[in-house]
Amino acid sequence: MKGFAMLGLNKVGWIEKDKPAIGPMDAMVKPLAVSPCTSDVHTVWEGAIGDRHNLILGHEAVAEVVEVGALVKDFKPGDKVIIPAITPYWETVECQMGYHQHSGGMLLGWQFSNVRDGVFSEYFQVIQADGNLALLPENVSVEEGVMLSDMVPTGFHGADNAEVAYGETVVVIGIGPVGLMAVAGSNLRGAARIFAVGSREICQNTSKLYGATDLINYKNGDVVTQIKDLTKGKLVDKVIIAGGTLEAFEWALKLVRPAGTISNINYLGSGEYIKLNRIDWGLGMGHIKIIGGLMPGGRKNMEYLSNLLKYGKLDVKPLLTHRLKGLSEIEKGLYLMKDKPRDLIKPVVTM
Amino acid sequence: MKGFAMLGLNKVGWIEKDKPAIGPMDAMVKPLAVSPCTSDVHTVWEGAIGDRHNLILGHEAVAEVVEVGALVKDFKPGDKVIIPAITPYWETVECQMGYHQHSGGMLLGWQFSNVRDGVFSEYFQVIQADGNLALLPENVSVEEGVMLSDMVPTGFHGADNAEVAYGETVVVIGIGPVGLMAVAGSNLRGAARIFAVGSREICQNTSKLYGATDLINYKNGDVVTQIKDLTKGKLVDKVIIAGGTLEAFEWALKLVRPAGTISNINYLGSGEYIKLNRIDWGLGMGHIKIIGGLMPGGRKNMEYLSNLLKYGKLDVKPLLTHRLKGLSEIEKGLYLMKDKPRDLIKPVVTM
Amino acid sequence: MKGFAMLGLNKVGWIEKDKPAIGPMDAMVKPLAVSPCTSDVHTVWEGAIGDRHNLILGHEAVAEVVEVGALVKDFKPGDKVIIPAITPYWETVECQMGYHQHSGGMLLGWQFSNVRDGVFSEYFQVIQADGNLALLPENVSVEEGVMLSDMVPTGFHGADNAEVAYGETVVVIGIGPVGLMAVAGSNLRGAARIFAVGSREICQNTSKLYGATDLINYKNGDVVTQIKDLTKGKLVDKVIIAGGTLEAFEWALKLVRPAGTISNINYLGSGEYIKLNRIDWGLGMGHIKIIGGLMPGGRKNMEYLSNLLKYGKLDVKPLLTHRLKGLSEIEKGLYLMKDKPRDLIKPVVTM
Amino acid sequence: MKGFAMLGLNKVGWIEKDKPAIGPMDAMVKPLAVSPCTSDVHTVWEGAIGDRHNLILGHEAVAEVVEVGALVKDFKPGDKVIIPAITPYWETVECQMGYHQHSGGMLLGWQFSNVRDGVFSEYFQVIQADGNLALLPENVSVEEGVMLSDMVPTGFHGADNAEVAYGETVVVIGIGPVGLMAVAGSNLRGAARIFAVGSREICQNTSKLYGATDLINYKNGDVVTQIKDLTKGKLVDKVIIAGGTLEAFEWALKLVRPAGTISNINYLGSGEYIKLNRIDWGLGMGHIKIIGGLMPGGRKNMEYLSNLLKYGKLDVKPLLTHRLKGLSEIEKGLYLMKDKPRDLIKPVVTM
Repeated sequence: MKGFAMLGLNKVGWIEKDKPAIGPMDAMVKPLAVSPCTSDVHTVWEGAIGDRHNLILGHEAVAEVVEVGALVKDFKPGDKVIIPAITPYWETVECQMGYHQHSGGMLLGWQFSNVRDGVFSEYFQVIQADGNLALLPENVSVEEGVMLSDMVPTGFHGADNAEVAYGETVVVIGIGPVGLMAVAGSNLRGAARIFAVGSREICQNTSKLYGATDLINYKNGDVVTQIKDLTKGKLVDKVIIAGGTLEAFEWALKLVRPAGTISNINYLGSGEYIKLNRIDWGLGMGHIKIIGGLMPGGRKNMEYLSNLLKYGKLDVKPLLTHRLKGLSEIEKGLYLMKDKPRDLIKPVVTM
Repeated sequence: MKGFAMLGLNKVGWIEKDKPAIGPMDAMVKPLAVSPCTSDVHTVWEGAIGDRHNLILGHEAVAEVVEVGALVKDFKPGDKVIIPAITPYWETVECQMGYHQHSGGMLLGWQFSNVRDGVFSEYFQVIQADGNLALLPENVSVEEGVMLSDMVPTGFHGADNAEVAYGETVVVIGIGPVGLMAVAGSNLRGAARIFAVGSREICQNTSKLYGATDLINYKNGDVVTQIKDLTKGKLVDKVIIAGGTLEAFEWALKLVRPAGTISNINYLGSGEYIKLNRIDWGLGMGHIKIIGGLMPGGRKNMEYLSNLLKYGKLDVKPLLTHRLKGLSEIEKGLYLMKDKPRDLIKPVVTM
Repeated sequence: MKGFAMLGLNKVGWIEKDKPAIGPMDAMVKPLAVSPCTSDVHTVWEGAIGDRHNLILGHEAVAEVVEVGALVKDFKPGDKVIIPAITPYWETVECQMGYHQHSGGMLLGWQFSNVRDGVFSEYFQVIQADGNLALLPENVSVEEGVMLSDMVPTGFHGADNAEVAYGETVVVIGIGPVGLMAVAGSNLRGAARIFAVGSREICQNTSKLYGATDLINYKNGDVVTQIKDLTKGKLVDKVIIAGGTLEAFEWALKLVRPAGTISNINYLGSGEYIKLNRIDWGLGMGHIKIIGGLMPGGRKNMEYLSNLLKYGKLDVKPLLTHRLKGLSEIEKGLYLMKDKPRDLIKPVVTM
Repeated sequence: MKGFAMLGLNKVGWIEKDKPAIGPMDAMVKPLAVSPCTSDVHTVWEGAIGDRHNLILGHEAVAEVVEVGALVKDFKPGDKVIIPAITPYWETVECQMGYHQHSGGMLLGWQFSNVRDGVFSEYFQVIQADGNLALLPENVSVEEGVMLSDMVPTGFHGADNAEVAYGETVVVIGIGPVGLMAVAGSNLRGAARIFAVGSREICQNTSKLYGATDLINYKNGDVVTQIKDLTKGKLVDKVIIAGGTLEAFEWALKLVRPAGTISNINYLGSGEYIKLNRIDWGLGMGHIKIIGGLMPGGRKNMEYLSNLLKYGKLDVKPLLTHRLKGLSEIEKGLYLMKDKPRDLIKPVVTM
């Protein structure tokens, strides 16, 4: 089968591989829609997780089941399914402790395009199908569905980890597709005022659709000053970091109130240290919590998040600025994410 | 000063009292808008909290500050303020433990029309003004503001105690104004599917504005059967009880999944026992949590909830079906809540 | 193979069965030590979970692995392992939501002697071995280890669900082996004052070893009155129900403070309704939480709880009042649990 | 009245001041026992909170009430009381949000020797007496009681913020009196294995009394290597930082598992940045939580923590290595904390 792969650092291309053999709990699927992600860019061109050779890329897909292992109970060939970016082995101690993202070790719940071939392929294997697939609701398109693989759960995880509550003021730094979903996720946890920090006009406009009340362009001056001017010096409840450099943590610490939370969902591709200013952090006694986490995957999350689309509570269509058609267009889609043209939020490739 | 009071069980009327003396941390205020509540009805005509003599009724108000004690720092005469129904003494051990609603003893955070004269009066005292008042935002009317005293926080508390999360299915039993706010509160915590159980058309229609996806009329048959037919037998994540009789708990237990929550915000005015069916409750091992709680009051909650109105995240105007004018109209407003005409959701009386 | 089974309601006896076939993720084990449980008594003589025919009983065991499926990674024949009473399939949505106890449906994480042959047998199958076995620490005996299958995790779960915190006052109703572990678990979460409610002298004495500060004998008068006399009328923070009839919930509600918790770990074998007095429950607004839950099983819990024994933080030997030897003694052990002689806490049978 | 004060940076001495005037909710008290703290040393000789002139030092005391304001309900002259280091104004929005430590602004719940004269004085004022005093239990000595002002609540807060749970492995860095109480607090939340990192023999020995299972001396080599050698490379669940330099955070991040917590209770007196290694922090996606917080004060915490002493669950006497007598000995006590002789854990001065 054909797949679009990381050949090595800074090098991508089409390769031919055998179809993977599936185990008794697994499924073989063929993609119906996939979407390239900034993470793929981090992996290939920043080497964020180290080198990889001939590893098929991609971790966002809606697919059709073509084969299931003997122990799979709930899925059968022909089912249209959402595949989350995170597909752990579910029997591990880590899963039992509530952090399936690190099943088997740090970040190892993230299998596709990390420790296993990804979804930019004619076929791919999903381990533990009953735990890692979810049926695509009938009234949700494959293009919309693929936003559930990573964009929605990552953004919403940022709001969840920030424990956004009714009436709070939240700053979202970075409003690419993940940051936009952090805005939407904050809105859907009851935030009142949401500052969206970004520069591209299409992202700013879209952030308003998702509930942003104040737009901050970091090109227009110091982010901290701009926000504090608008709040009349009041500190904010929560900061979600969905983009930018490690400096974003320093801004965040100057913005957040005592006992507030800084919630990172940005895949930090480079830099050596996140730095927390001792004074801003209340001499270590300010109860400001710093947390960063990989999105939750698995079937449950896909089912619950897809219900938001099914029942009309979330519309992901505004994210889908670029629609491509055919497996071969994946390459073009990836370069769109790498080059980020002004009118791009997120590309999707249907088969 | 004149006030509309409970004279005794089943008896209300206008009385004349001296203006209360305020302490050094207190404020004297005069109402700008008040709203009668079903709780007043429970108190007077059901005797739910026992007898009371010549106690001025009412606990929902927006007011103007007319005088403050010597130790009040943040408010001054002329300020327009929201007064929460719950106004505790804040230095108690109960407040320090996180349940200010029971400051000084069970339900004693609820002062107005319970252990202290209420707001249906020319003037009334608010204890610990810095802790119990909040400025009315400029773009929020006094009529809207008064919905923050009780309706919004009570309904939202139901959703908070239910720990409603992204994509969940929630049943709200009872869709008077509090139940409608439980629908809105569930929606603003990310619920996907919301069953609204009620019979009056105006409430049903309004529930849709607030996010209800499925309307259930208990007059059309067994509530449990109706809901399970729509879910194809699947149990729901959470049930919020905002009205009805004690029987609602039996429905709830038949609807909620293992490890789900039943969250009561209904002031249970009569009946001896809430009954939990042993089998439905998983032989005591099903992790189904039962919780019921009085709304959180105090300044913080008023400030945060009013931000939802200020920033356009919640619109309470659909609740305000009956607008009356003048102190003397309070009596009429109370009888509206007692008699519940078909077109009523909530009356408000402005001065 | 030989097993001691429930033949039907009120009937037990030895039967012969084929050794079960294990799947690729499973293990076959042979018991080294088992312990009969009051739950077995409920199941056989109260019919609490309905009828069962020729179902091998028992769910508490330490065993030796004799065979593993092809996909098992972490265990091999010869390993000495603790088997928790609760051994779910881990890939289910229920597990992903945090309640593996109900994996596949209410209480279905409980497999042994419920929906699958139990441990009173020459051999038995453990599903998903990597998720459901834990190595027995070297300095822990098989007799001690078997207390980790159910007694320790059930008792400790009661304290966990009660969210016992530093300095709290806790009442534990019922001080058989599970209740004693609820005392120990409360103590190990920092409770200051612990009321142990029970009548048998051996249990009372042992409760002191585990941290009880006040002993209450329900035969000496009303439990509520006795406790409130000792607290001078003050309500307690938490009540854990580990035994008794459904009436225990009524006591609990009269004892617990506003915003306190009633945590049930008693397998409620009979009675129709748990009844909550409306007034005691604060008219539905007192924030008193009622929760009841089956113990958490799986490997993680066995590993963490066994560390308490390994590092000397918990001593379960005082529970082991009756030590029997040989498979055939299981019958005698079960009747000990049924008849509860005065000197019994818990019997253990080693092979 | 006489008090021992910070005269300016690096300068302390006795001064004479007027007795403070107390407000209607306040109390005037005279100390029965006080204890100098490393925080006093940070304040005077590190200038950690900036300069102060003629500010009376000290924030740990047991005292006798000599006068109460007109609105004080629960205390009267003659009462022996514990005074927590943190004594906030309780009606603030910050208290209502659950972080009374920052009532009025970052760290401002900390009044004594920060923004108000401290306890090293003949008399001192306690604001909001009903919220900030607790009766000393009859069976607790004044010397023991004074350990409740700061040592116990700070250490225990470290364990609380780390959310230590049954069977966990915890590393406590720094085992002065606060670190020792973090060991005890971890033990009383059910930790199984506790690594105590420190060098002084008296502290090491005492840590064993409080539950430490493994002693690590940082003078014997790299702390991370020493601990990982003992765990065979396994990461630990939680790290509590109770001493050391900012480098302790780097150790902690190399020791803690994905989704673990680093809980700081060390008053970070110097250094510019806490640095989190990007890789160790899982590229920002490892769910490792960093939190640091000032101890909770107020009456509730004093009452609950003192119950641990009253009911024999915690013994603070091993902390009390140096007992001095008379107000004038405070100076000597402070220099003991500054110079830390080999046999010192904590000095206490009784009047």
